[in-house]
Amino acid sequence: MFGQIDHIGVAVEDIDGALALYRDRLGMREEHREVLEDQGVEAALLGVGDAYVELIAPIDPEGGVARFLAKRGPGLHHVAYRTPDIAGDIQKLVAAGLRTIGDEAHPGIRGTLAIFVHPKSTGGVLTELVQPVEDR
Amino acid sequence: MFGQIDHIGVAVEDIDGALALYRDRLGMREEHREVLEDQGVEAALLGVGDAYVELIAPIDPEGGVARFLAKRGPGLHHVAYRTPDIAGDIQKLVAAGLRTIGDEAHPGIRGTLAIFVHPKSTGGVLTELVQPVEDR
Repeated sequence: MFGQIDHIGVAVEDIDGALALYRDRLGMREEHREVLEDQGVEAALLGVGDAYVELIAPIDPEGGVARFLAKRGPGLHHVAYRTPDIAGDIQKLVAAGLRTIGDEAHPGIRGTLAIFVHPKSTGGVLTELVQPVEDR
Repeated sequence: MFGQIDHIGVAVEDIDGALALYRDRLGMREEHREVLEDQGVEAALLGVGDAYVELIAPIDPEGGVARFLAKRGPGLHHVAYRTPDIAGDIQKLVAAGLRTIGDEAHPGIRGTLAIFVHPKSTGGVLTELVQPVEDR
């Protein structure tokens, strides 16, 4: 179910400022940038080994990331694990008594399929499953 | 400097309860468990691909993790990146204007060397560098 860490999601106020930190000062490679209207964010992926740091900045002031920033400030927002079979894993999660946010995977960044597990099911850790586009 | 994600650190109140979630319900393999007196925590490592989820529970009620839990509740605490040369990377971080917590790497879990970068330097993300024991 949890094959490897796909990315850590970092909530930021200013995506350009955060890119300047991660790319220019920490030396990570910028790989992708995309507006995800449904999730109310602009996101950028920086590669680190076979995984990513995903910077997410709100574009919707009423969205979840905007609310997170207002409450907790910028910082670690979620962790995502990569799977080749998100539909099968959703069934396993539900069978294990965990609660997903929504019943089915939704389109995620860069053509992926994704679903979040509710942090009340995972000890306060907002947890995402991601199926890469090549496994769709 | 940031070769790959080594682990995500998750602050928990009850390490046995958290292990029951990650190991028994999410199916991750428990690989290690250790009391880190200096850091005031008991920690457990669960393998996920080539990385880990590190559960950390306070044993010192005045320590940083206890304070984190009191303020924010259980959840994502830090992210750690693996490096083969932590001493060289500390020099690079300082040269890039980032602030480490302490000047030198300290002994970490399972014989590693480790250092934290202050979250004020990293957009609110408590960030750790870890040099595995085989690179020491």
